[in-house]
Amino acid sequence: MNRVIIHDPTLRDGQHAVRHQLDVAALRGYAEAADAAGVPVVEVGHGNGLGASSLQVGRAAVSDDVMLSTVREALRHSRMGVFMLPGWGTSTDLHRALEHGADVVRIGVHCTETSLAERHLGFLAEQGADGHCVLMMSHMASPDQLAEHAVAAVGYGARAVGLMDSAGNFLPPDVSARIGAIAAAVDVPVIFHGHNNLGMAVANSVAAAQAGATIIDGCARGFGAGAGNTQLEVLVPVLERLGFDTGIDLYGLLDAAEFAERELMPAPPVTGSLSIVSGLAGVFSGFKHQVLDAAGRAGVDPRDVFFELGRRQAIAGQEDLIVDVVAELGRREVA
Amino acid sequence: MNRVIIHDPTLRDGQHAVRHQLDVAALRGYAEAADAAGVPVVEVGHGNGLGASSLQVGRAAVSDDVMLSTVREALRHSRMGVFMLPGWGTSTDLHRALEHGADVVRIGVHCTETSLAERHLGFLAEQGADGHCVLMMSHMASPDQLAEHAVAAVGYGARAVGLMDSAGNFLPPDVSARIGAIAAAVDVPVIFHGHNNLGMAVANSVAAAQAGATIIDGCARGFGAGAGNTQLEVLVPVLERLGFDTGIDLYGLLDAAEFAERELMPAPPVTGSLSIVSGLAGVFSGFKHQVLDAAGRAGVDPRDVFFELGRRQAIAGQEDLIVDVVAELGRREVA
Repeated sequence: MNRVIIHDPTLRDGQHAVRHQLDVAALRGYAEAADAAGVPVVEVGHGNGLGASSLQVGRAAVSDDVMLSTVREALRHSRMGVFMLPGWGTSTDLHRALEHGADVVRIGVHCTETSLAERHLGFLAEQGADGHCVLMMSHMASPDQLAEHAVAAVGYGARAVGLMDSAGNFLPPDVSARIGAIAAAVDVPVIFHGHNNLGMAVANSVAAAQAGATIIDGCARGFGAGAGNTQLEVLVPVLERLGFDTGIDLYGLLDAAEFAERELMPAPPVTGSLSIVSGLAGVFSGFKHQVLDAAGRAGVDPRDVFFELGRRQAIAGQEDLIVDVVAELGRREVA
Repeated sequence: MNRVIIHDPTLRDGQHAVRHQLDVAALRGYAEAADAAGVPVVEVGHGNGLGASSLQVGRAAVSDDVMLSTVREALRHSRMGVFMLPGWGTSTDLHRALEHGADVVRIGVHCTETSLAERHLGFLAEQGADGHCVLMMSHMASPDQLAEHAVAAVGYGARAVGLMDSAGNFLPPDVSARIGAIAAAVDVPVIFHGHNNLGMAVANSVAAAQAGATIIDGCARGFGAGAGNTQLEVLVPVLERLGFDTGIDLYGLLDAAEFAERELMPAPPVTGSLSIVSGLAGVFSGFKHQVLDAAGRAGVDPRDVFFELGRRQAIAGQEDLIVDVVAELGRREVA
């Protein structure tokens, strides 16, 4: 059987859906439930990763130190994962995460900016830590470009490398081509992290596994912003049915997901209009609130704003473009 | 471009999620919104179809006559669809549906019991009506068996024939094989109706279209019992992106789905533990409440009950099996 390592960012990516307000009881309870089910890696943190808690992207209810020590204590068998975006997090944050016993450290970079991860991946390699690199917004690059950047990441010291479908834009053949190109180019495990904007998170994750990815992400009930992530407790039995071995106990996983639905989220993710439109447009859905605000003030259709941002290939950090696009669409409507 | 006809049973299959309580304002409002978006067929009725309103499966808030006249009035361009399960509905119900101006009449039968539809399909053909036949619980039959039954249905007069994945058990290759076999065997349009128990409703519907289905079902926000149906407003743009032409206006469709979320349902469908287990087991999720009741009384795990019902190939109408299975599992635990 082909082994697939399930990586569970419920307590990190799910934070986006609750403005980073998960409390200690929720973190501990879910980590214990996932551990009991045999989930190999439980990732925890602010939604934007280590060091990101701030006025700009939202203050977390719990500090990084308390999050990490809480989850570390709760895990008996599962490894603890953390995530960091260079710029939000720094080397100091990585040091402290390792001191807290983080086993897997993911560095996330825009898909064509792998060099931003060089120093951090090098540091992790020096420390003998399990440093991974994930290429975000990966629908914006070709299979060849992504393979090139994956090779670069491995050169910097990454022990695993892969893709986030940050905008939820992929359909299964897109995933097969990109994961296949990376798997052919590197000899470390390949990662896939899906989003459900086009209803394809499970199908895309299966396509990734079939194309050679061996680390696949999923969150309980798909917990995450907007349309959410790949629903973990659906993904696992589907992978098992297709002949992949996850080592996870199904009933334990279903119990963990019920805990998550009850204790972590006001409601499971819903795929609404702007999730669908941002997925189609290939735009980070985190722009949603700013788009709604700016479009509302100008009397412009926010769906048009997303499609135009997609045409301009807007990426996170380029929120200024929203204002430009809204102004231009407003002028077009008046004209 | 390949044309796909979207068939929208939001106002029929969705009724299962609200105990058949949609009122006249909801029926009219959604029908108008779907019509404005250019949805080709809007199906309406009690969840179990014409004539099914009863104490046994639940009384609808609105009679068949009022449902049909309300939706008929609301539709300017869309065709009106109805659904009937022989036994629940009778020839009298078909007569009245045609008098109300039903344009598409679907007769649903268990996938190996097509002969139950013979008389009704013959009557519809005589009347010059557009009579369709859908084979339910279609994961329980092989591609060849399904093709045989599809050919029989066309022989009885069906102008279209296809599959319901009633248990939400299919993965895309299962759909491709079965739809492909039917499309090769008949020269009428082929139908696919998915459920989302394994997160595959959109992917399965795409697989169906690529294998030759030209009538695909979807419901606003996936409105339906348990994990729900294929999410219509996701399916349509995904099909369009893949080169299929639906003739539907995306923004209009997104608006209709927002109306549905606000006015038709307490909340969009969630894929919970028993939806996943019933999908994996290949058991009709409509058994859920009876399984929960019987298992709860006996102190048996309802998930075990679903898996055992799956092993025994239980189908709707065999609710007595639930009691047998619970009793046997109870004895096993005591032993």
